[in-house]
Amino acid sequence: MNHQPLRAACMQPDAAMEAVARAHQTRLTKPPGSLGRLEDAAVQLAALQRTARPRAGRVWISVFAADHGVADEGVSAFPQVVTGEMVRNFVAGGAAISVLARELGARLEVVNLGLVNDPGELDGVRRAVIAAASDNFCNGPAMTPAQLQAALAAGADSVAVALADGSDLFIGGEMGIANTTTATALACALLGLPPERLAGAGTGLDAAGIRHKASVVARALQRHAGAGDALEQLRCLGGFEIAALAGAFIAAAQAGLPVLVDGYITTVAALAAVRINPGVRPWLLFGHRSRERGHDAVLAALQAEPLLDLGMRLGEASGAAGAVPLLRLACALHATMATFEQAGVSDATGARG
Amino acid sequence: MNHQPLRAACMQPDAAMEAVARAHQTRLTKPPGSLGRLEDAAVQLAALQRTARPRAGRVWISVFAADHGVADEGVSAFPQVVTGEMVRNFVAGGAAISVLARELGARLEVVNLGLVNDPGELDGVRRAVIAAASDNFCNGPAMTPAQLQAALAAGADSVAVALADGSDLFIGGEMGIANTTTATALACALLGLPPERLAGAGTGLDAAGIRHKASVVARALQRHAGAGDALEQLRCLGGFEIAALAGAFIAAAQAGLPVLVDGYITTVAALAAVRINPGVRPWLLFGHRSRERGHDAVLAALQAEPLLDLGMRLGEASGAAGAVPLLRLACALHATMATFEQAGVSDATGARG
Repeated sequence: MNHQPLRAACMQPDAAMEAVARAHQTRLTKPPGSLGRLEDAAVQLAALQRTARPRAGRVWISVFAADHGVADEGVSAFPQVVTGEMVRNFVAGGAAISVLARELGARLEVVNLGLVNDPGELDGVRRAVIAAASDNFCNGPAMTPAQLQAALAAGADSVAVALADGSDLFIGGEMGIANTTTATALACALLGLPPERLAGAGTGLDAAGIRHKASVVARALQRHAGAGDALEQLRCLGGFEIAALAGAFIAAAQAGLPVLVDGYITTVAALAAVRINPGVRPWLLFGHRSRERGHDAVLAALQAEPLLDLGMRLGEASGAAGAVPLLRLACALHATMATFEQAGVSDATGARG
Repeated sequence: MNHQPLRAACMQPDAAMEAVARAHQTRLTKPPGSLGRLEDAAVQLAALQRTARPRAGRVWISVFAADHGVADEGVSAFPQVVTGEMVRNFVAGGAAISVLARELGARLEVVNLGLVNDPGELDGVRRAVIAAASDNFCNGPAMTPAQLQAALAAGADSVAVALADGSDLFIGGEMGIANTTTATALACALLGLPPERLAGAGTGLDAAGIRHKASVVARALQRHAGAGDALEQLRCLGGFEIAALAGAFIAAAQAGLPVLVDGYITTVAALAAVRINPGVRPWLLFGHRSRERGHDAVLAALQAEPLLDLGMRLGEASGAAGAVPLLRLACALHATMATFEQAGVSDATGARG
């Protein structure tokens, strides 16, 4: 298996355009810096999109769905059939991300990477089925090398479609019963942190459930202690949708498409992507801080400050979707506010523009 | 002067509708509580609007502009002519709030309560001129009783227009060079806090400027130590736009129109409104946490948790405007997500809906 494409160079943000955008912000009719992170977001998008007029109008959302062998360990509050049921719900329009994508006018693609309760062919679902589920990583690697490669490629395929659609921004989401356990196992391996530090309630475990989840992760970490690098850790302790997200983020950075990262699970995938290819990091914007216990530590490892902090913990790309209007407003302010000179407004020196 | 209308009863949120909305949220296809504050916002709006289908589509924004005598003390980084210049900019479409209102499809009204650099009649500006500026509260009360009454009434007038326009939500904003000094003086009086605790950079003071500002506020507090209640504190230490905001918030609560509060200055106005009439409090949602130093303490006094925390410190209603899309998404999720039953998705008990 040739991993070379994963480590190929990413695009570089445009430092000159960043400086132009930052200078433009100081000429707009407001005290310098007073729009806070809305200024930063516009400047960052200008650098990434290499334009004086950054945009977030055309948004692509890929939700990667997969089942997890580790669900056999009884680590989720919901039964495994829900993954497939929710895929139907995504494309029927009733899930949170369906509503959000509709309201935002975003393109929503659902990718079936392997579901125990497979809904079959459905309009709006791309079938990229690898197996009914990843293997239970308490007993062996979650994926074979070929399965990992297929999952990474499925993510890159979504980015290719998003690019062909003229997207300004790529959002990846996930659905997979038990996948906060998977994300926790992978994050513990990547960060060298103990399971008790990161294991959280997921869809609704009680304290005993969380202790059990941490013990399951501890067993997995012990079994795969020899996994040597991030890619091998992803293979042994990841899942199809997490690998697809990592593959998508790497492909997006290589193509120069900005990514808006969602919550805990996607942030763990982003961390894996950055460990595999550090050039990914500048392409990541962060939508929200999840209430899931482990998110803070993973965000800190990426030096990431999400835009929103609303106590959400749903996944499906819902938190990232919630942040899209902020990016759109940031771009509109950057593009259409008057300068001091245009408006004839005096600046802080008292000089009338 | 008859203050009775200010203390007349406010509408009560509908507790039964709140319970209905909360129960509806638990039936939607997501783990209970996983949409975090988006769930809370929809439930709160359902209770306030007395409907199972809360809305934030039709948004009214009134920006109250006024000059402040205390500007004579050299407390702002910008010259006083800027208040009037910015009023022109608001209606010419170049200010931050102009852009935000346009992007949101919100109605934007600018109210001229008294400007040293008066731009005269302008389309989009309602003239409710009280005087060229409030008096310098270091030397005497900021307003006469009649001026206070006129300012409060101007705010109530805006709410009446917003109601006539069928608004779902009222946002008040402000513009007035030196008005973080005014807000700080009023907040210190209302909360019994020392000026050093609340005085901040405003539009861009340095450390020496902030110390000077605090000393100006200290002189004002000493002079008006005898102001007996919140209304008298507002008269002595407020400004026309802050009084108008307080009047608007009281009128909105009395009419049953939800309010989305902006940043530091509007939150101080909200605190004054709640002190004058405690029934105002349930009608207030909070848009954002400003970077201005004093905001945290005033929010804490109101037990308020804003939706956004983006390091903004502009005023003009810009932070509240930034939070509008979150309320709209919250309403859309509440209204259009499928229930477990509708979608045939299994819930946490394993029962297929």
